Amino acid sequence: MLLHFSPAKPLISPPNLRRNSPTFLISPPRSLRIRAIDAAQIFDYETQLKSEYRKSSALKIAVLGFGNFGQFLSKTLIRHGHDLITHSRSDYSDAANSIGARFFDNPHDLCEQHPDVVLLCTSILSTESVLRSFPFQRLRRSTLFVDVLSVKEFPKALFIKYLPKEFDILCTHPMFGPESGKHSWSGLPFVYDKVRIGDAASRQERCEKFLRIFENEGCKMVEMSCEKHDYYAAGSQFVTHTMGRVLEKYGVESSPINTKGYETLLDLVENTSSDSFELFYGLFMYNPNALEQLERLDMAFESVKKELFGRLHQQYRKQMFGGEVQSPKKTEQKLLNDGGVVPMNDISSSSSSSSSSS
Amino acid sequence: MLLHFSPAKPLISPPNLRRNSPTFLISPPRSLRIRAIDAAQIFDYETQLKSEYRKSSALKIAVLGFGNFGQFLSKTLIRHGHDLITHSRSDYSDAANSIGARFFDNPHDLCEQHPDVVLLCTSILSTESVLRSFPFQRLRRSTLFVDVLSVKEFPKALFIKYLPKEFDILCTHPMFGPESGKHSWSGLPFVYDKVRIGDAASRQERCEKFLRIFENEGCKMVEMSCEKHDYYAAGSQFVTHTMGRVLEKYGVESSPINTKGYETLLDLVENTSSDSFELFYGLFMYNPNALEQLERLDMAFESVKKELFGRLHQQYRKQMFGGEVQSPKKTEQKLLNDGGVVPMNDISSSSSSSSSSS
Repeated sequence: MLLHFSPAKPLISPPNLRRNSPTFLISPPRSLRIRAIDAAQIFDYETQLKSEYRKSSALKIAVLGFGNFGQFLSKTLIRHGHDLITHSRSDYSDAANSIGARFFDNPHDLCEQHPDVVLLCTSILSTESVLRSFPFQRLRRSTLFVDVLSVKEFPKALFIKYLPKEFDILCTHPMFGPESGKHSWSGLPFVYDKVRIGDAASRQERCEKFLRIFENEGCKMVEMSCEKHDYYAAGSQFVTHTMGRVLEKYGVESSPINTKGYETLLDLVENTSSDSFELFYGLFMYNPNALEQLERLDMAFESVKKELFGRLHQQYRKQMFGGEVQSPKKTEQKLLNDGGVVPMNDISSSSSSSSSSS
Repeated sequence: MLLHFSPAKPLISPPNLRRNSPTFLISPPRSLRIRAIDAAQIFDYETQLKSEYRKSSALKIAVLGFGNFGQFLSKTLIRHGHDLITHSRSDYSDAANSIGARFFDNPHDLCEQHPDVVLLCTSILSTESVLRSFPFQRLRRSTLFVDVLSVKEFPKALFIKYLPKEFDILCTHPMFGPESGKHSWSGLPFVYDKVRIGDAASRQERCEKFLRIFENEGCKMVEMSCEKHDYYAAGSQFVTHTMGRVLEKYGVESSPINTKGYETLLDLVENTSSDSFELFYGLFMYNPNALEQLERLDMAFESVKKELFGRLHQQYRKQMFGGEVQSPKKTEQKLLNDGGVVPMNDISSSSSSSSSSS
């Protein structure tokens, strides 16, 4: 039943009832005419039940760090009927009020509210200092800690180091943000690792309840170890951010003659430029695989340059000495294969005479 | 009239006519019943007129270089009713026949066909050698030469150097290829420069007729000097190809947790990887602005790395010496501004605590 009768107004007169309820659209036979307001109480009862059910299934979630990303997630958590309380170093009480959350200046006050879930939405760089001084002792012994950082091995290690042993741990990474998840989360990956969830049914159910928010939003739910996440993310997310920053520095700009390929570059810059340098530095420093990927990208760039200049060198030598000049040895391929897994195409084989534009 | 009666079969009996022509779907009144086959000749006459009109508006186009891109364009030229003849170093007679073009092994034979337009679809690298040995003397004095190379100053200079003075010159760049223009050319840029078109009405009309093919396909027609084209294309098309090749060498691959931004990188590689190294080298060597853009890209990459390592250095010094450590001077910004036009964002200002993912 989706009839929105407010429980505060139980005295609905029969004409009103007749207008709102589809059951009474056709006038009831005379003998069944409603003569007492008691008839409306069936709806009140249902509303109460629903509200109680909601309360029982709602989580009290404490969001730690109420910046851009924390606010972005909170809106959806509230829409799913959960009770939001939040704390941040800066005063975000207005932002919290505007979406129906309660803001606490002091983390002790927040903890005294006994949230079911503590959701860490701090930046990667400040996570450790937040955990180091957090008043865990004021929380209930059974609390679920969740993080949403873009790196995963790092917060997992911190949680295991700092959190009381009774706390449950769920490491997650919603792989979208206020820009890419603006319109919908449907189909966007949500990675999670149940690092430590107690056996008790209530603990299991609490974790599932939290995950169900993202599932119901249509996210592509990917259960994956923190280690595996960092392996994939260094090769994809960190490289994407690096390329976006390189192109932003280079200064790509729309021209009157954009090719389709160039437009994907412009999209990329738009997608990454709104993210902070903090985040980029976090992806670099706190993902153990990032440095290796940066080096591989560097080598790939050097290798492309070497191909261009190598060909030029070869052509010019041909002019100087005539005839067929031997191709230079491809030392850069070896270098790349050391660090990577990629089988390279043989460049010399791709010399057809096509002249297309991408 | 779009009735496809074949002019070779003028004797159509009345029942056939009745079946095919929508005019006679309703039986004509008795007094108007067709009693002689002469009645059908009105259609023959129209068909003949149409065919003559077609012939008069059709161009005989000789495509020089019938590789990937030449074939791609030819299909559309034929669809627009033009007469296609072609020559290539390799034997492409089967490919030509399959789309309704005629293939000539010998360029002399091709020229004796007196094409209205010679469309150069060779690779950038082979253009000069093709022009150097081409039997121009066998063509009519009034011939329109068109090229479709991805660089424009270079073929313009070659045309002016090698072509007889009576020939018209139209330099063009359809900024799409078999991949990006697979489904439609609608909205894709077609750049052209009327380098030398004689004043005679027939010469003007011939050029317009050729341009109309791309206009009717829905291309975004951009009239632009060859110099300006090369300026813009170095900053867009060459950079796109470079990034595509760098990412291909790096080895981007779809992962279970692709972000939206990463998917634009995968698209980019797909868009550029089918193009030959020849083309990439052509864009580099034959666009006077390409080297400068490659250097700027190099500097942008170095600058991003310096930011990461500079921050790391600073953080570590903070740990060693405590307190606030002065930020290092940003020398790379100066370097970039020398070569470029881009106002850089101050990095230190973007340190909000958001943690989103693109």
